[in-house]
Amino acid sequence: MSNDRLIYLALGGAGEIGMNCYVYGYGRPGKERLIVVDLGVAFPDMDTSPGVDLILPDISWLIERRDQIEAVFITHAHEDHVGAVAHTYEQLKAPIYARAFTANIARRKMDEHGHPKDAVQVVSAWPEQVQGGPFSVGFLPMSHSIPESSSMVIDSPDGRVVHSGDFKLDETPLVGEPFDPELWADVCKDGVKALVCDSTNVFSRNPGRSEATIGPDITKLIQSASGMVVATTFASNVARVKTLAEAGERAGRSIVLMGRAMKRMVEAAIETGVLTDFPPVVQPEDARSVPRENLMLLVTGSQGERRAASAQLARGKYQGIEMKEGDLFLFSSKTIPGNEKGVIRIINAFSEQGVDVVDDNDGLYHVSGHANRPDLERLASIVNPQVLIPMHGEHRHLREHVKIANGNGMTGVLAVNGMMVDLSGNQPKIAEYIETGRTYLDGTVQIGAMDGVVRDRIRMALNGHVVVTVIMDDEDEPLGDPWCEVMGLPETGSSKTSLVDVLEADLGQWLGRAGAKTLRDDAKLNDGLKRVVRQSALNEIGRKPEVTIVVSRLS
Amino acid sequence: MSNDRLIYLALGGAGEIGMNCYVYGYGRPGKERLIVVDLGVAFPDMDTSPGVDLILPDISWLIERRDQIEAVFITHAHEDHVGAVAHTYEQLKAPIYARAFTANIARRKMDEHGHPKDAVQVVSAWPEQVQGGPFSVGFLPMSHSIPESSSMVIDSPDGRVVHSGDFKLDETPLVGEPFDPELWADVCKDGVKALVCDSTNVFSRNPGRSEATIGPDITKLIQSASGMVVATTFASNVARVKTLAEAGERAGRSIVLMGRAMKRMVEAAIETGVLTDFPPVVQPEDARSVPRENLMLLVTGSQGERRAASAQLARGKYQGIEMKEGDLFLFSSKTIPGNEKGVIRIINAFSEQGVDVVDDNDGLYHVSGHANRPDLERLASIVNPQVLIPMHGEHRHLREHVKIANGNGMTGVLAVNGMMVDLSGNQPKIAEYIETGRTYLDGTVQIGAMDGVVRDRIRMALNGHVVVTVIMDDEDEPLGDPWCEVMGLPETGSSKTSLVDVLEADLGQWLGRAGAKTLRDDAKLNDGLKRVVRQSALNEIGRKPEVTIVVSRLS
Repeated sequence: MSNDRLIYLALGGAGEIGMNCYVYGYGRPGKERLIVVDLGVAFPDMDTSPGVDLILPDISWLIERRDQIEAVFITHAHEDHVGAVAHTYEQLKAPIYARAFTANIARRKMDEHGHPKDAVQVVSAWPEQVQGGPFSVGFLPMSHSIPESSSMVIDSPDGRVVHSGDFKLDETPLVGEPFDPELWADVCKDGVKALVCDSTNVFSRNPGRSEATIGPDITKLIQSASGMVVATTFASNVARVKTLAEAGERAGRSIVLMGRAMKRMVEAAIETGVLTDFPPVVQPEDARSVPRENLMLLVTGSQGERRAASAQLARGKYQGIEMKEGDLFLFSSKTIPGNEKGVIRIINAFSEQGVDVVDDNDGLYHVSGHANRPDLERLASIVNPQVLIPMHGEHRHLREHVKIANGNGMTGVLAVNGMMVDLSGNQPKIAEYIETGRTYLDGTVQIGAMDGVVRDRIRMALNGHVVVTVIMDDEDEPLGDPWCEVMGLPETGSSKTSLVDVLEADLGQWLGRAGAKTLRDDAKLNDGLKRVVRQSALNEIGRKPEVTIVVSRLS
Repeated sequence: MSNDRLIYLALGGAGEIGMNCYVYGYGRPGKERLIVVDLGVAFPDMDTSPGVDLILPDISWLIERRDQIEAVFITHAHEDHVGAVAHTYEQLKAPIYARAFTANIARRKMDEHGHPKDAVQVVSAWPEQVQGGPFSVGFLPMSHSIPESSSMVIDSPDGRVVHSGDFKLDETPLVGEPFDPELWADVCKDGVKALVCDSTNVFSRNPGRSEATIGPDITKLIQSASGMVVATTFASNVARVKTLAEAGERAGRSIVLMGRAMKRMVEAAIETGVLTDFPPVVQPEDARSVPRENLMLLVTGSQGERRAASAQLARGKYQGIEMKEGDLFLFSSKTIPGNEKGVIRIINAFSEQGVDVVDDNDGLYHVSGHANRPDLERLASIVNPQVLIPMHGEHRHLREHVKIANGNGMTGVLAVNGMMVDLSGNQPKIAEYIETGRTYLDGTVQIGAMDGVVRDRIRMALNGHVVVTVIMDDEDEPLGDPWCEVMGLPETGSSKTSLVDVLEADLGQWLGRAGAKTLRDDAKLNDGLKRVVRQSALNEIGRKPEVTIVVSRLS
């Protein structure tokens, strides 16, 4: 019997939505040859990661095994799947494979970071397969909310694994390949060891709707509008962008694309041939001469991002265009949890301008890109795997998906980031627990989420910061009084005099009473002065600030 | 003709949801006698107000006119209506009127802050009226999600104004008075000058459902549970707490109340007689001896608050009780926008414990406390006011509500915080624009939202903080090298050596080259050193930090 094993390991994406990174390995334990599926990012927020630019999966485990990595495969061009390719390229230096549209986007990222574009290689759709050590890997077309999304068909000496990637079952997706149940049945007919499956919409009970269902309502809406129409959606949802543009065209409007991502995505889709027959567009600088009732803008910023086109229009002019009373703004999108306040801020700003805002509350103008529960069950029944491993979900999604799999007679495995699953043999088992986490891209530096840097920022934001400077002369006596600088704290507190004065007085008093032993000892001075500031501030303003003590010795 | 006028002015709550504070005045312009309706708070968040404890309306306008204030009326005991009574009492020193349950809660707040409880006076329901200068004010019972909610009937020499407060039209609210359309018709039969009206649910198109409709589904759910059941809702929703407790009792479970607010609210409701026949409760310390399948906990924390009972159970033990696989957790509540991530965090933590979480996705276990669009229309048709002024809503809500009013043949007035409406004469008009804003309760200090304190905290959180200390000798020459303390920044950057070392070297170099004029001038030194740090950090770590320069002169 072989000692080789087939393993699955999520480094990101299983137990959270975002920063997808999955590893498959085959070989002797510890010596497996590895392939990586997706290298995505997640987005920071003020609550947990203020000042951070991007969140990457912690790929230390992969970096330590760089020699074992055969290749990286990218399922599709969403940021949470492709966003980290350039940031991790130096560390992994593995060839990257993707289909044409995805590769186009990935190469732009590589180029921006000064990496060779040809590190990203274009692969055709199934039945083409790429050899990666013991693996043969194919890109099986699948429908989603971006062109050329693919499921990975991963053949190993221990059998076939299907990694769904993000998907919905859309047989009329408008742009890109429809879901083809017969092709899928054929690919899976000889048995599938494991289906590793998207779980995003596991709690949605009705079958998903096709992209084709919303065009008529959008057209009707635009035709009924009397002023300028502005619509936003994820720029990468090329089918939606096309639907919106065609609806605008049908209503006799000139189409204007606004926002960097909007232009980049349409450009990539046209370059790679996935988008054809896109209505002619007018440049923003020419749009000003078009009567506003004949204009339709397609803009970035469906999630309320502060710097996107939608937010700039909400604040005033963007590229010379501004909204007016009677205009219509359409969110052809769903608000991702956590972005509600940003989106609502924009809606209220438009309201102040007299703009009518239409969102997706009724499901008329948006459909999800992910498979709902009945669709998940349908795919599982087509693939009919021995084992189903849910991915792309928070813990609650994975757990529910496992329940469904078990309820349908499959073996569901709940494996979050770091839980290595051994798929060899008849029964999957957790083989190892790997330490995983998050890496922050912070400015130009990658730091560990647990390094304390961001924790200190959060503390300063919650508590303010006091800096105390003391100069000690060459006889270890204080030279003059200590002084304070405060940042992020009220100027005055309960005693109605300046907080800085109160702190300095208390510090001076304490220093005056401190013994020679304390004055000679930096650690003791530091502790003592800190305690004084925190207690004094607590009395004055009711909070204990962060404190930095700077002791300068002239000796 | 009289020179007196009747005015309406929102200082909080019109253009936002939260910190309600409305003013009515009657008299000669600038000399009006004033009454205040509600003194509420809003809640801070990390994005806009890190470290802040509570947000109060800026009542400077009222403080400047303290002598003109006759009284404060509180419509109901939700924090966004009563939360600021104690924080503003010293500044206003006006008598506060409320019905018994609301007064009970308000008095607890006054007591906690060392203010006299009897500043809060209990008023009976309509037809009792309180005289406040030229006003006679009555508490007209109205249904909402807390006992004894009332609309204010405000009689002035210029006619009757009805201030709805928060409301829904519930004729079977289970606890508290049902909405009584006949009483309302009678109150309004002689004509109403203005209806100032809740707008929260203006976008909800179906009629609201009664509190009585959800009991059966909740009972069914609890009866089907095999482990311990834990349910959360707003503690102040006494009717819901009772519904949940009765459902638990019916399922043969002992009821345990957990969380400070839960106990306080039930206590206040029993003390004031609005809650009767509440099932017997078991103390948390006794609950451990009850088999878990016979337990039902009612806990605080429906919005994912980190310190509430639900979050503590999600993290582990709370008061000796912990959740286990097979237990059920019910959110009998709606998540307020902005709280999604906190709630989801708890759901995932329960998922990791194997607990089944049920929320309100299907509307089976929660109904809103606010009137939907058809209910707003129904109330307006009963009141039949000359003017409708929407309140308690963001701009988008107010605007939509005005549209509905105008569509129904009324005169709708869009007046956000600070827009004083003159209701005298036949046509309402905006009489003045008052500066309004937010006051932060920060520790024990009240600071203005625009004072820069919180802005500095946000900057430190986004950019980190570098503190530079330089000592200048008595000849204005640097004594030794400058040194840096950094907080919230990566330790190393592009040059792979310590960031502090790089910054100190660059600062030293700059100082070495600085001329005598610069070295003598604190402002120039400060600017120069700051620029060095920001540029050097940008090169090293790709970001410009906040910088504090401390120059100590021995001269």
